[in-house]
Amino acid sequence: MQRMKCIISYDGTLFSGYQVQVDKRTIQSELEAVLEKMHKKAVKVVASGRTDAGVHALGQVIHFDTHLDIPADRWVQAMNAMLPKDIAVLSAEPVSENFHARYDAEGKTYKYEIQLSKIRNPLMRHHAFHYPYPIDVGRIKKAIGYALGTHDFSSFCAANTDVKDKVRTIHSIDCVQAGDLLTLTYTGNGFLYNMVRILTGTLIEIGSGKREPEEMAGIIAARDRSAAGKTAPPQGLYLKEVYYLNK
Amino acid sequence: MQRMKCIISYDGTLFSGYQVQVDKRTIQSELEAVLEKMHKKAVKVVASGRTDAGVHALGQVIHFDTHLDIPADRWVQAMNAMLPKDIAVLSAEPVSENFHARYDAEGKTYKYEIQLSKIRNPLMRHHAFHYPYPIDVGRIKKAIGYALGTHDFSSFCAANTDVKDKVRTIHSIDCVQAGDLLTLTYTGNGFLYNMVRILTGTLIEIGSGKREPEEMAGIIAARDRSAAGKTAPPQGLYLKEVYYLNK
Repeated sequence: MQRMKCIISYDGTLFSGYQVQVDKRTIQSELEAVLEKMHKKAVKVVASGRTDAGVHALGQVIHFDTHLDIPADRWVQAMNAMLPKDIAVLSAEPVSENFHARYDAEGKTYKYEIQLSKIRNPLMRHHAFHYPYPIDVGRIKKAIGYALGTHDFSSFCAANTDVKDKVRTIHSIDCVQAGDLLTLTYTGNGFLYNMVRILTGTLIEIGSGKREPEEMAGIIAARDRSAAGKTAPPQGLYLKEVYYLNK
Repeated sequence: MQRMKCIISYDGTLFSGYQVQVDKRTIQSELEAVLEKMHKKAVKVVASGRTDAGVHALGQVIHFDTHLDIPADRWVQAMNAMLPKDIAVLSAEPVSENFHARYDAEGKTYKYEIQLSKIRNPLMRHHAFHYPYPIDVGRIKKAIGYALGTHDFSSFCAANTDVKDKVRTIHSIDCVQAGDLLTLTYTGNGFLYNMVRILTGTLIEIGSGKREPEEMAGIIAARDRSAAGKTAPPQGLYLKEVYYLNK
């Protein structure tokens, strides 16, 4: 058996999220269906983590085990030929049998796209959050300072989660405006369920003047979901990269 | 009665083109449905021209006549509140009753987006043409020189058209590559049916080495659709702007 690591990209618009659900179209089920055809038996795919319905990926990482003797670059072609157009395998490489896409992930980068135009852009409706009110980027940058580093991020975690330890480290949050597109890029050692979307919703409330940048410290200290802002919608969120230590 | 001119944008992906067709979802029928609700009677919408199924617009222009006494900026809000998310009214202004969105158009700009990455980008599948082979932009620029100016563009016109006079003037064709995205921007006094897509398909064949840049002169001179290249697919095409003389 050979373990394969693949980097994949997908448009989350028409999926009920990453993970297999009965009678739903999911990224995992499409990947497993293709691998089952190739292997003539069920093949389990393990991802670095789930993404929700409507959330996109530029660099999701998966692994699976295979007995097929196919060169790495042929894996990319073979899978892409069978996958639907809203998923693509960007790369494939053989890895050690000890590699695990989820447990070995040392960090991730997500980006969140906000369309600040007064009038919605029909071409971006599935790929950015349309926020038609003024945003002060300076206020957002000030608030970001409080979120960096290691904290208990319970205030930024959706209630429906089993995770006990809610301490995470955020290495960086970049905030860049280009024209009417505001991009927030988050890099950290891991993110709780809905954490990037709740952080983004809270930063938007701060940027628009509904909350003060300094409130961020108190929101984190509260360790209570109700202290933070709204969960920003899924269509602006992209899983950009997953980091692994070589092993 | 007051004639209104609106600039609209749409994502063409889920439409059977601009023009009303029985039992099809079209941009014109969505616009007329909204105006009929507002006016409580049928209102005819006239556009600068049609766009095909899958073709997008960043700046399509329409006009219609109204007896409603609504300020221009309220028109934008009112229509956007009722239109589906894949159409947006960007601006509205009262114009002279002599203004005609189609007959008065003095020129148009289209852009065509080509994704040159070896592996398809799922997020761009409805918004660019994926062409995974090498392209030499220098060859395209050389070929463009032959297409500029006033010519009979019969070779670049789909067979199924009623238009008799196929002489058009192309003012400029810009060819810009940014990363793996190649953008061709066409400005002219008017374009025949499928003209931009056939020009693009032909330029891609020249850029990829299937034809020589110098062949462009002969293709134009042939005045025969079969002399030109393939029609590039609709999803890369955007109607960007329509120009009018003030009157």
